[in-house]
Amino acid sequence: MSIDISQEYWAQHDESGEYPHELHAALAKDGWLGIALPEDLGGAGLGISEATMMLHTIAESGAGIAGAQTVHANVYATQPVAKFATREQRQRMLPKLISGEYRACFGVTEPNTGLETLKLRTLAKRDGDHYSITGQKIWISSAQVASKMVLLARTTALEDVKKPSEGLSLFFIDFDKNAPGLELKRIKKMGGRAIDANEVFFDGYRVPADSLIGEEGQGFKIVLHGMNAERCLLAGEALGLGYAALTRASNYARERVVFGRPIGQNQGIQHPLAAAYMNLEAAKLATYHAARLYDSSVHDQSITQHAIGVACNSAKYLAAEAAFTACERAVLAHGGMGYAQEYHVERYLRECFVPRIAPVSREMILNYVGEKVLKLPRSY
Amino acid sequence: MSIDISQEYWAQHDESGEYPHELHAALAKDGWLGIALPEDLGGAGLGISEATMMLHTIAESGAGIAGAQTVHANVYATQPVAKFATREQRQRMLPKLISGEYRACFGVTEPNTGLETLKLRTLAKRDGDHYSITGQKIWISSAQVASKMVLLARTTALEDVKKPSEGLSLFFIDFDKNAPGLELKRIKKMGGRAIDANEVFFDGYRVPADSLIGEEGQGFKIVLHGMNAERCLLAGEALGLGYAALTRASNYARERVVFGRPIGQNQGIQHPLAAAYMNLEAAKLATYHAARLYDSSVHDQSITQHAIGVACNSAKYLAAEAAFTACERAVLAHGGMGYAQEYHVERYLRECFVPRIAPVSREMILNYVGEKVLKLPRSY
Amino acid sequence: MSIDISQEYWAQHDESGEYPHELHAALAKDGWLGIALPEDLGGAGLGISEATMMLHTIAESGAGIAGAQTVHANVYATQPVAKFATREQRQRMLPKLISGEYRACFGVTEPNTGLETLKLRTLAKRDGDHYSITGQKIWISSAQVASKMVLLARTTALEDVKKPSEGLSLFFIDFDKNAPGLELKRIKKMGGRAIDANEVFFDGYRVPADSLIGEEGQGFKIVLHGMNAERCLLAGEALGLGYAALTRASNYARERVVFGRPIGQNQGIQHPLAAAYMNLEAAKLATYHAARLYDSSVHDQSITQHAIGVACNSAKYLAAEAAFTACERAVLAHGGMGYAQEYHVERYLRECFVPRIAPVSREMILNYVGEKVLKLPRSY
Amino acid sequence: MSIDISQEYWAQHDESGEYPHELHAALAKDGWLGIALPEDLGGAGLGISEATMMLHTIAESGAGIAGAQTVHANVYATQPVAKFATREQRQRMLPKLISGEYRACFGVTEPNTGLETLKLRTLAKRDGDHYSITGQKIWISSAQVASKMVLLARTTALEDVKKPSEGLSLFFIDFDKNAPGLELKRIKKMGGRAIDANEVFFDGYRVPADSLIGEEGQGFKIVLHGMNAERCLLAGEALGLGYAALTRASNYARERVVFGRPIGQNQGIQHPLAAAYMNLEAAKLATYHAARLYDSSVHDQSITQHAIGVACNSAKYLAAEAAFTACERAVLAHGGMGYAQEYHVERYLRECFVPRIAPVSREMILNYVGEKVLKLPRSY
Repeated sequence: MSIDISQEYWAQHDESGEYPHELHAALAKDGWLGIALPEDLGGAGLGISEATMMLHTIAESGAGIAGAQTVHANVYATQPVAKFATREQRQRMLPKLISGEYRACFGVTEPNTGLETLKLRTLAKRDGDHYSITGQKIWISSAQVASKMVLLARTTALEDVKKPSEGLSLFFIDFDKNAPGLELKRIKKMGGRAIDANEVFFDGYRVPADSLIGEEGQGFKIVLHGMNAERCLLAGEALGLGYAALTRASNYARERVVFGRPIGQNQGIQHPLAAAYMNLEAAKLATYHAARLYDSSVHDQSITQHAIGVACNSAKYLAAEAAFTACERAVLAHGGMGYAQEYHVERYLRECFVPRIAPVSREMILNYVGEKVLKLPRSY
Repeated sequence: MSIDISQEYWAQHDESGEYPHELHAALAKDGWLGIALPEDLGGAGLGISEATMMLHTIAESGAGIAGAQTVHANVYATQPVAKFATREQRQRMLPKLISGEYRACFGVTEPNTGLETLKLRTLAKRDGDHYSITGQKIWISSAQVASKMVLLARTTALEDVKKPSEGLSLFFIDFDKNAPGLELKRIKKMGGRAIDANEVFFDGYRVPADSLIGEEGQGFKIVLHGMNAERCLLAGEALGLGYAALTRASNYARERVVFGRPIGQNQGIQHPLAAAYMNLEAAKLATYHAARLYDSSVHDQSITQHAIGVACNSAKYLAAEAAFTACERAVLAHGGMGYAQEYHVERYLRECFVPRIAPVSREMILNYVGEKVLKLPRSY
Repeated sequence: MSIDISQEYWAQHDESGEYPHELHAALAKDGWLGIALPEDLGGAGLGISEATMMLHTIAESGAGIAGAQTVHANVYATQPVAKFATREQRQRMLPKLISGEYRACFGVTEPNTGLETLKLRTLAKRDGDHYSITGQKIWISSAQVASKMVLLARTTALEDVKKPSEGLSLFFIDFDKNAPGLELKRIKKMGGRAIDANEVFFDGYRVPADSLIGEEGQGFKIVLHGMNAERCLLAGEALGLGYAALTRASNYARERVVFGRPIGQNQGIQHPLAAAYMNLEAAKLATYHAARLYDSSVHDQSITQHAIGVACNSAKYLAAEAAFTACERAVLAHGGMGYAQEYHVERYLRECFVPRIAPVSREMILNYVGEKVLKLPRSY
Repeated sequence: MSIDISQEYWAQHDESGEYPHELHAALAKDGWLGIALPEDLGGAGLGISEATMMLHTIAESGAGIAGAQTVHANVYATQPVAKFATREQRQRMLPKLISGEYRACFGVTEPNTGLETLKLRTLAKRDGDHYSITGQKIWISSAQVASKMVLLARTTALEDVKKPSEGLSLFFIDFDKNAPGLELKRIKKMGGRAIDANEVFFDGYRVPADSLIGEEGQGFKIVLHGMNAERCLLAGEALGLGYAALTRASNYARERVVFGRPIGQNQGIQHPLAAAYMNLEAAKLATYHAARLYDSSVHDQSITQHAIGVACNSAKYLAAEAAFTACERAVLAHGGMGYAQEYHVERYLRECFVPRIAPVSREMILNYVGEKVLKLPRSY
């Protein structure tokens, strides 16, 4: 994959907030968008391991999380469509995403639920051959440029289900910002500003009934399937940031001379970078181990969901933390220059909070490991 | 001191890069700019302890480093003028700074010297009743809005002095961006963007000979005097950021409910904030201890420069690190909202790199303590 | 205070588990045991600040926690006796402690209560002019050599009180290991092995009624008074360990030559020690600030219990953590020699867990600060 | 492998310093000592991966580093003998080691060289059909019980070689403490005290000429070969300690009830353990990845020594640090009980300094990675 888009491109787009159309077009042209989609639809038919590697590579090129998120949702949010849609739906929906004609965003998170996915409230009410959607989503990336959305919404209200995991359904909908009942509000954020993040307000927004993917009420189960995959993808993106930061810091430390010596000759600079490297390597092993488990589980029944869950959550945690350490040390190794946009490491640092925070917090992963592995009582 | 400028004001100015004229005007009006300048010139005649407290308070109000830097140079760079200028110079230069009519920037750092102040190369060549200045400065804050500069430049070239500490002289000059021989280039940076930082290029820029403060060749000695004071001021600014971040994080953790409980009830949120608080308190004690030593040394000869140097450097280090920890944990305690401009903690975090990096790096302080206190050999 | 007891003395006593009678005798002889007891009883009438300084000094001499604990209970557990006993009791009990004729241990902690002091169950049942004591205490230091115990026990059973803080009473009792109803079991422990720690089993152990200090049922209130003082003392002891470790590490790093240079010339050795020093200094300021607040509160009503509690808990936390970091880095700076008894730093490291764990855990202090300062909900 | 030796056994042997003969005998009986020695000599013919796994398992059983070191030298120091000795020597030397009749210690480190192996000075002077050995070794484990030593000594004095890597030779010698010219001095140490560590003094100690393994002057090259293997073994031992500590801490946290709940329900206890677990898992992946590289390199020429060196050094670093974190948190999770011998975690913590410090320091690994991977200048 040749990504000959310069670091300056990313610095400028981060500043202007403009979407990186050129990267999206280049990746579409070379067939990367369908990396993990079936070959009969024009995809490459590869797995999450390869998708993780692709996002890792994009991020490491200097494109960072912004670059990775240019395609992240296309890789990830389309998985349930490929697996659970009808043959007709798949043909209608996916080839144009793979070719880059469509762009999709992924609509799950809501402002009042935070990490409690089961508290989602956005309602899709059946109305003849349409659904009418009402509710609010938040942190929806690329919504400004997307023409499609993969949406998780309740077809039965939270109050009317027995278990909160019931009543959720998945849709692949037109995302028409000119149609009534759909409003966006862009969120100003710390980094990754080339990719818009949004609050999305639905108020009686109508979509055809055949936008439904799979059966009504099966949405949570369908989405759950892919959550571990997303942890791998974000782990890969974090790794990319971390290695990119270390490379820049090492280069700078080799060249910058103060007190008559390259600053990298000082252990105060060298050792923190070397330690960050080893931690990144360990996180890399954990990430590709998790992705391999995920992919292998398709045909190897001995790999339990428990093992996959622990591996993928751990990988996301380890990669994000190792990458953050690398980015922070890269900034500090640059001295004052670490603070200047021109040296790029400050951009990586800002972006590195995304994999630390999303799609699940560090604290929730610690709870998960505490309960599932160490068998400690639930703490919340 | 009432600073009724809203958090949103600072978020907007950080985004737009516009100088906070309103804060500067309000502080000037209420007489704060001369806090540490002599009473006979219109100042308050107080010490570095009080100036530190003022900057701490400004930063903690939500104005952060940007707010503090609105006045930082006026407080700090004017100290040598007050101490070493002639009576006539002081009267000419300082009252208008105190009243807010002038704004001064401080011109010391150069791109190729980094932390090696003694390698400064900018030359001020005597030419009749003028000096002609040629050279380059970097990281000059507020230069876009300043009409004066306190400048450290060589009056004897580095090649011609016996010791590199010789040959440097201090000037208080008109900083006329319309005059020939003066160019500015604004540096894009990670945070504190309301206050411009600049590269400044002098090329035969002429200033009257009576811009010289003190004697020719005494500049390093004059400036050295104030370096420990500046460490206290930055320590105070860091503390302000840290406490502001903790307050916002605690408020958020008290109010944000997930899984049926305020998130602050979870030790995973609560404990890191509590530990950050204790470290900030310790850094606060260290900061005001250092400032008190600095101020007391004026009339108490038993307080050695060694003791002051260790205390002030330690205070800067401790406060910046404690503040960074507080800011980082505040961002993480906000979950996804920590990444949104609207919650302000991401702004504090970005700004917090300033006191970590400037005016002296963490590594140089560790070297200083290692050599001066632990009596270990110089490592570089 | 001249403590001319060698490091080797302490290493040997740590190995043999023998009580440091020589230090106790020397401190008694020079009048140090009564440092914080009233002058009319033979004490020095000084405060917790001075007592903290004494324990800090003893620990820093190389005697460590073992040295400090030789006198710790005499300084601390006697405070409520001095304040709440009758004139007759005080005369009977304290002068012989000050002279070193008696040694006292402090009996509060029980195995099933942990940090829940209010769950104490040891019962002192009134029986004519005696109390009969039944129950179990744990982690009682110096019980093997003590002839007296300051004991907290219930005079009303936990089941029969309205509030758990009621029904506890304080006693100053003969601790006669030959009398019926008293058994000891020494606990093998990680460090500080010169000072015995014990499980103490009371089974109908009889003490005269006038062993009661203050009123029945007031014990918790009486003891509570001194808890903040004990945090200061342990903070001081931790500081002593930390500084002792840094001194030894700096000396070693200056002298040990590898690859043709003192290892202290390497920033990989020098910087961690320098950072540890600055953190110790900050913790020292926090410790003596807390002790000063505690002492001043006696005559300055504006100092709230809240302020004292926050300061003393924070000081204990900060000092213990800073000392541990110093000790750990000192061991690592010694390379393989850090593992050898002969270099003493491994002993400091082992002992440093005492102030980290006792008399209150790090987690409980974080809870305290989280609730009392940050106003977050109670988490447990 | 069934190691039905109790935790108490190890606690007692740590206290008494008695060698764990029972474990050595059990392992010998079941054929474990020759795990990585050739099958024709009675070994199992397996690789470093399996040997790492064995030591990991022994350590994790609660035997810790003491247990692992019971066999460590037999596994590791015999490798060069198996590879470079003559057929006759191998038959004479190795089968009795595998059967447990002999025990070998490994004599490399010297007091004045530290990590500078090339500065070794112990001299083996040829004298007819004998060598006469003079010099001093330090940190020689199991020397008290060993009857053989694998010895690295100079056959040409350091002053007489062109390059310091020349002139070293390897010997497999009788280690006869009753013979003239051999003295031992046991080193008192922080942990792992069941296994004696010693200073060894040679003064004209005579060994037959056919004790020489390989050619004279090739000793450094021969030993170098196995250094990466030893890093894997120690990484495995560290992992064992770390997992053992986490298991005990989780068990304790599940059972210990304070304030009406198992303490493991508190995130202040649970989260640090969960994070420690994830870091251990990452270190485990790094360790077995390194061992696999080492073993595969025998028949796969594409695996470079550079790759092996980076992987093995990183594995040792990561495993030791992750294990230390796990041990420290396990102690703290136990509260006061963490300090008691009876709960075993304090023993693990003490032992965990061995893999942190040996056989190469953390700082030297950071230098190695800084230079070899990040291409930064040598700093020392």
